[in-house]
Order: sequence, then C-alpha cells, then structure tokens
Amino acid sequence: MKYKKLGDNILYNGSQIKPFWAFQELKLKGSSIVSWIGPMKIEPEELIDYEDVNHEIKSDEMIHFIIEHFDIQPADIKTCYHRQRMFVMIVKDTLCEFGIKTMRKGDDIYFKGKKLSVSISTCSNSSMKIHFGMNVTNRGTPEDIETIGLLECSNDFDYEKIDVCIDKICKSYIYEIRSIEEDITKTKVF
Amino acid sequence: MKYKKLGDNILYNGSQIKPFWAFQELKLKGSSIVSWIGPMKIEPEELIDYEDVNHEIKSDEMIHFIIEHFDIQPADIKTCYHRQRMFVMIVKDTLCEFGIKTMRKGDDIYFKGKKLSVSISTCSNSSMKIHFGMNVTNRGTPEDIETIGLLECSNDFDYEKIDVCIDKICKSYIYEIRSIEEDITKTKVF
Amino acid sequence: MKYKKLGDNILYNGSQIKPFWAFQELKLKGSSIVSWIGPMKIEPEELIDYEDVNHEIKSDEMIHFIIEHFDIQPADIKTCYHRQRMFVMIVKDTLCEFGIKTMRKGDDIYFKGKKLSVSISTCSNSSMKIHFGMNVTNRGTPEDIETIGLLECSNDFDYEKIDVCIDKICKSYIYEIRSIEEDITKTKVF
Amino acid sequence: MKYKKLGDNILYNGSQIKPFWAFQELKLKGSSIVSWIGPMKIEPEELIDYEDVNHEIKSDEMIHFIIEHFDIQPADIKTCYHRQRMFVMIVKDTLCEFGIKTMRKGDDIYFKGKKLSVSISTCSNSSMKIHFGMNVTNRGTPEDIETIGLLECSNDFDYEKIDVCIDKICKSYIYEIRSIEEDITKTKVF
Amino acid sequence: MKYKKLGDNILYNGSQIKPFWAFQELKLKGSSIVSWIGPMKIEPEELIDYEDVNHEIKSDEMIHFIIEHFDIQPADIKTCYHRQRMFVMIVKDTLCEFGIKTMRKGDDIYFKGKKLSVSISTCSNSSMKIHFGMNVTNRGTPEDIETIGLLECSNDFDYEKIDVCIDKICKSYIYEIRSIEEDITKTKVF
Amino acid sequence: MKYKKLGDNILYNGSQIKPFWAFQELKLKGSSIVSWIGPMKIEPEELIDYEDVNHEIKSDEMIHFIIEHFDIQPADIKTCYHRQRMFVMIVKDTLCEFGIKTMRKGDDIYFKGKKLSVSISTCSNSSMKIHFGMNVTNRGTPEDIETIGLLECSNDFDYEKIDVCIDKICKSYIYEIRSIEEDITKTKVF
Repeated sequence: MKYKKLGDNILYNGSQIKPFWAFQELKLKGSSIVSWIGPMKIEPEELIDYEDVNHEIKSDEMIHFIIEHFDIQPADIKTCYHRQRMFVMIVKDTLCEFGIKTMRKGDDIYFKGKKLSVSISTCSNSSMKIHFGMNVTNRGTPEDIETIGLLECSNDFDYEKIDVCIDKICKSYIYEIRSIEEDITKTKVF
Repeated sequence: MKYKKLGDNILYNGSQIKPFWAFQELKLKGSSIVSWIGPMKIEPEELIDYEDVNHEIKSDEMIHFIIEHFDIQPADIKTCYHRQRMFVMIVKDTLCEFGIKTMRKGDDIYFKGKKLSVSISTCSNSSMKIHFGMNVTNRGTPEDIETIGLLECSNDFDYEKIDVCIDKICKSYIYEIRSIEEDITKTKVF
Repeated sequence: MKYKKLGDNILYNGSQIKPFWAFQELKLKGSSIVSWIGPMKIEPEELIDYEDVNHEIKSDEMIHFIIEHFDIQPADIKTCYHRQRMFVMIVKDTLCEFGIKTMRKGDDIYFKGKKLSVSISTCSNSSMKIHFGMNVTNRGTPEDIETIGLLECSNDFDYEKIDVCIDKICKSYIYEIRSIEEDITKTKVF
Repeated sequence: MKYKKLGDNILYNGSQIKPFWAFQELKLKGSSIVSWIGPMKIEPEELIDYEDVNHEIKSDEMIHFIIEHFDIQPADIKTCYHRQRMFVMIVKDTLCEFGIKTMRKGDDIYFKGKKLSVSISTCSNSSMKIHFGMNVTNRGTPEDIETIGLLECSNDFDYEKIDVCIDKICKSYIYEIRSIEEDITKTKVF
Repeated sequence: MKYKKLGDNILYNGSQIKPFWAFQELKLKGSSIVSWIGPMKIEPEELIDYEDVNHEIKSDEMIHFIIEHFDIQPADIKTCYHRQRMFVMIVKDTLCEFGIKTMRKGDDIYFKGKKLSVSISTCSNSSMKIHFGMNVTNRGTPEDIETIGLLECSNDFDYEKIDVCIDKICKSYIYEIRSIEEDITKTKVF
Repeated sequence: MKYKKLGDNILYNGSQIKPFWAFQELKLKGSSIVSWIGPMKIEPEELIDYEDVNHEIKSDEMIHFIIEHFDIQPADIKTCYHRQRMFVMIVKDTLCEFGIKTMRKGDDIYFKGKKLSVSISTCSNSSMKIHFGMNVTNRGTPEDIETIGLLECSNDFDYEKIDVCIDKICKSYIYEIRSIEEDITKTKVF
C-alpha cells in the first residue's frame, strides 16, 4: 500500500472518491492512501451519502485522506466501512497523542460537541474507497451545524504538527492493514 | 447481537473459542458477545495461534470477551481480524476514558511497555469468533514476558469500575457493528 | 426488514427497480418490502430483462411488490433470484389459501394457462432488488399474450381480500428470510 | 445436476448428510439429488442441528432426499438454506397437486397440525448439502410429538403415487435451479 | 459454455467487451466464446485499460476472441484475470503445436520480440469478460511499437490453418473450464 | 509470495498438502512455494482425491512443489484449481524451453503418452494448497499405468538442469500471480 502526501492546495469536490482517481490523476497504481490540505466543496452530483442530499458539505481548509484498496475481489461496501471505522479510530487515537481528546460516533469525530470531520466510504466491484476530511479551521463550514477545526482545538497545534500527525495516521493505517494480513497466516481455522 | 455477562468464575481454557460455544453452553443463539471474569490456562490442543505453540498462555484473573458473528456467510478470517482490531481499539479507547492510557500494537494492549492483554480470532465456514482477555492482575501470568493487570495500572481502578468498563466496551462494539450495517443502506456505490 | 403498504395509485414505470428507490422516494432505510396497487408501463430505458426488449410490459391495475435486501455484501444476482423464487412460491401458496389455484413456471404465475404476473430481479454491488407485479384485472395488458387478473380468477375475490392477501404475502416473506437467518445459528457445518 | 432414485431400503443414520457421500457411496459425481424409501435413526454423533441434541430423530419408513450442490464456491450455509426452503416449498406444492394440503413452517411440513417431515441443511467449504425426510407412515416416530405419514394423510395415496411424487419433486427442483442459472444470463445489473 | 465462430468481417471497436454483448447482438445466451477475423480500432470511450489512454489500439486484421462467463456470482476481476491467463497460455500452446514458438509476458504474446496480440479483461457484478486479439498481419498496427502478424511468423501458416487453430483454442479453453468444475467434485477440502 | 528450495531428500507422504504445513514445519509464514526432490508415497488417510482411493500414489524420486496462498479470503477450491492449471501450464512451458515437449490434460503432464506428473489442489477456509510432483525417473512408480521420468525424456537433461528448471518454474509462477494483482489496478470495471 502506497502513501503519497500532496503539496498542492487541491479542492476536494467529491470527484476524488471515484475509483481509480489516484491512478488517473496521480499515476499512483495499486492500493494507496493520499493526503493533502485544501478546501472542500462537494458538487451535488458527486454526493455518495444519500442522507447528505440538500446539505452543503464544505470547508475552507481541511486535511483530506483518500484511501483505495484493491486487495479484496470483489470489493464490498461492508468491508470498506469496517476499514473506515478502523481509520477513524486511528485518527482519534493519534489526535489524542497530540493532546486533542475527541469523541467519535460512527465515522464522525467531535471536539467538545463540535463536528471536526466528515467521512464517506464507497466501492465499485473492484475497489474500496474512503474519504476522511478533518477541518484545519472552521472557516467556510456549514452554518447549520456547530463545527470546529484542529487549530481551534488546541493552542499548541500548528501546521508543523499537522504534518507530523498526517504521517503518523497514514503509517499507522498502513501498518494495521498489513498486520491483519500477517495474522491470517498464523491462525488455525475450523 | 446479544450481550451476556456471566457471574461465574469460569476458566478460559481455549475451548470457548470454538464456534457455537455460546449456543451449546449458554443457550445463547445468534451473534453474541459474552463476558466474564476468570482465570486462563489454554490447553495446547486448543491453541489457535500457531505462533503460541510451546508458549504458556495463562493468567489467574482476566476479563474475558468471547464474540461470535453469524452475519456474513461464508465467514472469513480476514473480516474477523478487522472486527477484532475494531474491538481492541474500542477497549483501548474505553480504558482511556477511565484514565488508563495504553499503547496498542496489532491486537495487543500494553501499559508502560507491559502486556495487558491476549487476543485471537478464528472462524469456521459459518461463524467468526474473537477472544480478548485482559489481565485484572498480573498474578499467574507467564514469567518470560513482562505483564501487568488493570488493578496495577491505576490505583483508582476497582472491580466496580471494571464492571462498568465491561458494559461500556460491549455496548460500544455492538453499536459499532450496527452502525456499519446502517451506513451501508445510505451509501451510493459505483 | 421493513414492510410498507402505499395507499397511492402509483405508476410502476420501471424506475422503482433501481437500488435505493425506497430510501430516496419513501425515506425507507434498510431492507424493505413495499407494496401498492397501480398501473404499470415500463419505459424502454428502464428494462432489466434483455428478453423483454421490444415487448410492451403494461397493465392498467396491478399489485406491485418492490423488495430490497442489504444483508449480503457484495450483493449478487444469483442469491437474488433464489429469493425471488421463494417470494413467487409464497405468492402462489397464499393465493391457494384464498382459493385461487395457480401454476408457476420460474418467476411467472398462470391461472388456467393465462399469465397473471410479471417479475424481475436485479442487483447492484450493494443491494438486491425484486419486482413482482400481479394483475388485478387484465385491462391494459399486452394483446399478444393471454393474461388474466385476480378479480377474473374468482368471483369471491375482491379488494378487501386483496388487501389481506398482500399483508399475508409480505409477512410470510419477511418471516421466511428471518427464519433462514435463525436456522444458520443452530447448524453444524463441516 | 443428476437425479438418482435408489431401490434399496437404506437406513438414514445421518452419515448421508456428509459432503461427498453420493460420490463415495454411489459413485455419483457432481451436483445431485438422491432419493429412496427407508427408515431413519440418526446417531447422536451425526447430529447437525444443535437444537436436536437429546432428541430422538427416527421413523420406520420415510422418503429421503439428499441434495448436494457444487456450483457455488465457496459453499455457504445461507445459500444452502435458501435452496432448502425452495425444495420444501416444491414438496408442499407437489403434495397439493396430489390432493394433500399441508402447512409449512420454515423447513417443516405439517398435515392437520401433525409433523410430516424433518429437514436439515449444512455445508463444507466446497459443497452444500440438504436432507429432507417425509414420513410414509408415522410408525416408529418419536412419541413426544404428534406425527403423521403420507399414507395416513389420504386414502388415495399409495406407493405407486409416492413414486410418481418423488420423481416430480426432484425434477421440479432440478428445473428450478437450472432456470435460475438461465435467468441470470438475461438480466441487467446496476 | 457455447462456442460461436462468426463469418463476418466485424470491426472490434471495444464495444464488444461490454457485458451481454453476445446476448444483445448475437442472441447467444449464457457463458460463451465468440471468435471472428476482422480489424480493430478501439474508440477512446470504450477503453478498459487505463494504461492505454492516449495510445492507439488498432490493426487491420486480427483474430478476435470474446469470452463471457456467468458461472461465478458475483463476478470478480481477479478470477477473470486468472482465466485470461489460462486462455493466453492455451493460445501460446496451440501456436506452438502449429510450429510458431512465441514468448508470453502476462497477457501479451510476442514472436521474436514483436508484439502479436492485445488483451483485456473486465467484469460487471454479474459477468466476466475477456477480449484477446491476435494480428493476422501487422498491417495497420501502431507505429510506436514493433508488431507482427501470424502470417509473418511462419510461411507455413495460412487462413485454413488459422481456422483450425481458432477451433482448437476455443475447444481447449472450454474443456479446461469444464475440467476444473469436475475436479472440484472429487476433491476433499479441510 | 516466498520461494524456498529444500536441500533435503524429504518423503512426500501427503501430509504436506495440509494447510499451514510450510509454517509449522519450515517457519515459512505467508503465501509460499516450496520445492524439493524426494520420493513419494501417499498414506491412504492423507488422500485428497477421492478418485485415488485404492490406488497407489508413489515414486522413488520426484520434484515436489507445494504452494500455499492466503491472499483470497475465504479461500475456495475453484480459484485454487484455476491456479493449479496456471502452474501446470507454466511447468509444461518451461519444460518445452528445455527441449522436452509434453502434452497436458487437465492437471496431468504426459511425455509420449507416458505419465510424468501427479497433482492435487485443496483448501481450507483460509488457505489454498497445491501439490505438483514430477518424476525425475520412473523408478518406484505404480505398475498399472505407464509412467516416465524427466531424465528418461531427454539425454540432455540432468540434475543441474533440473535445478535451473525448478527455479524458473517457481519464479514464473510468482511473477504470474503478482502480474494479475497489478492488472487489476489498471482495469475499468462495469
């Protein structure tokens, strides 16, 4: 599984959740996790979550993670949501190590009751995709819900720490997936 | 998914990891999570982890969790390990709420470098099984590795809190599995 | 699995066979069976059965059933057709209890050699869908095949009985699916 | 799918439910349905249904059907139970054509509230197995439940009709499975 | 599995790789292998291989094979690529019997370092598709890679032999798939 | 996927086909291919092929290959047989490069009508296993079938070449499996 951190300030508009985005746009072949910092504004036609219809999904500055898995064929949405949960738990755990204690509910992370993140999973027949976005600040987020950004969670947190934090999250996730693969090869089944 | 907490001081000897144990011994039908406090001494013939061969797996007092899932047919060890990881993350998270900050590596939990838990997953064609055991004290644990028990992690922690903690872990896990089921029903796939 | 009977006289135009129709149109989340009485006229672009191309699929008044299942991931057309067959057998059985003895061939039901019903199954990666439509009368059905409606099968049958019959069919199907889930949890496998 | 009717009066002792029985005992290779008339007395160690433990499963004379499917790999118990239900519905339907109106609940068939049949499904990783047994008479059946045999359901029913009935059931089931295979090849999926 | 050899000089434009092409265009229902001789010019919008984007895929005269499988549900791209490899190995083997010794790398066949063939696999949820095209001559092939046609590989090879060769390849592949089905039914699993 | 060539003259007695043999006996963890030269004499209780019952499966000197795959969960016998066929085709192809032209039928290889090899595939829920054995000489092979060994196929062939040949076969197979994994990540699905 490859990890690539993009330097550009790319808009997450929902198109990146499509299968093969990493290969088509970044020439990144195979299972991968891509991360960058940039705004979010999801086009209605790119919505994956039917419950999000008629809601604005936007933020001026977020850390984005796009994950794609090809290891399970056919891909299925159930396994994908298991991995999404594992990823979100790793995010929560990593933030905690940086002194930011959050609360998780399903695939959402909250700080003092304020929404810090958005996430969705989807799949095609051949790959599983996960998007996880976490506000850096709450600027440009929807007005109908209380939101917060990482920089507002802690005075201690800055872009340098964000950068370290992103690396740690991605490497932990990659390690987790690989360690599961390894555990299978030592386990008796009935 | 059913949750049952047993009052008896049952020995975990490895036989409980077998499929249909909950139904055959407890008349608990369907997917379930069972928990109790008791010693552990795994019989060599019940070993599931081929890396554990020739190691003693024992402890005088542990919190045991036995999970069985029938929702995916055929059952597979890969999905089972995903759920095991989710469970262990929930345990770590819950302990943290009780003031016990641990470190997780794969399916093991450590406190200040000392091993706090053991875990294994397995499956048959029709069900997935998970065992997670966490030392209450380090009495009776193997001498060749450094271990610790919950009561030794914090002066604050006692049997009453353990009881609350067990409930919280089990309910969080059940909620998590159900919330994944629900998320599937609102998600567009490609 | 949820059951909803619609009071409106909705046209079945084939769009209802699409995954997530129940959620998008009726806010019905999860596995469900929806039933209503209304006409049918399938738009060519909504055809699922490649053998129906260039055939008119229409009727002035039918009982419609739309089933969606999310319990198996990934969804597959083979399992879906097994469930469709089970559903059609339940329909035949229920009609028999109301004194209407029909003949079944695959997913079609006939009364005295006249076609009483239409049915199709399909799936996406994440859900299985079944449509079953049964003529209330034969008005507006295609002229190139002999058709019949329930009211023409028996003088005894009326809208009140149709209403009871619909409930019975849906409840029997829901019971059947649940009883299968339960049988899995008591069965030894090799 | 092959169909073989055995002339011998073979005891059903539960060993026939094991995968590859038809190949090992009858040199019948591949998916098959085997039928014969004979007694039943299931050895405790051959029990598949954990709910049957400590119950006597016996009858002096039954029609036995043993089905094995290799078409789905890996085999799974859920699909197997779907097929069992389809088979039992076909049995009920066929009996009805012979004038015997029965009531079905899950995989059991009753005549006037009396149990007429027993059934179980199971699988290994590579094949699905179904046993369905129907009393010819109620002689030798357990005393703790009310049972009945086909000959006691109708004065009209005799061994000649039983023979015709067996053929009809088996051929209908084989046709059903094949028609599902065919429907898959004409169906658009999303 | 059906085999059909077309007499017409049909252009392979990439549309034939779509699921259900054989049924929709040729009324060929079920798993099949179709073969014909004709040119190739793939329309950009029909490209399946993301690595082929911006490359010309063309040839004036090729032997085309289009395979579709419905036997595994849901269909998956991994199994499909296994079958494609088996097919290409059979092609290489058959050519060898006709005195043309080629070299294979993945799904490509080379003669003295020159590319002789193109191939792709894909699937929908319900069927697996394979295209394999082999140049009869190298006329009209892209100029940026060295290519060759069968007639240029050997003076001995002519259209009559090509015809025999096509039959042999198709029959060998059909035999192979069927022999796998049969081997399953004689094999003990753990 | 790991490759290990053993120097010892190990007897293949059928026990090596069991899942986890490479891990339990050789500490080789994960998917692997193991090869060695040694005799074969399969114990009746280790027989996997039900058609081999009552046949002697033996040879004084064979090249043995034992393959185990953990990449597909749950493992299934159908995919396993596809890989076995690919492996046998690679063996045939490699022998051909060494000047030994053989004929393949299913999983058997013949030289001038004489049997050169034996093979079987099997699986548990979590791994797929393949054994392929090829006679070095025909000494000690069953008398009721005509057999041959590699050294008898060609005067040119010796132990040094056998050694090179084994490496080539194993590396080609490993390459093939990996190239399939890669092709998946560049392929559009429907």
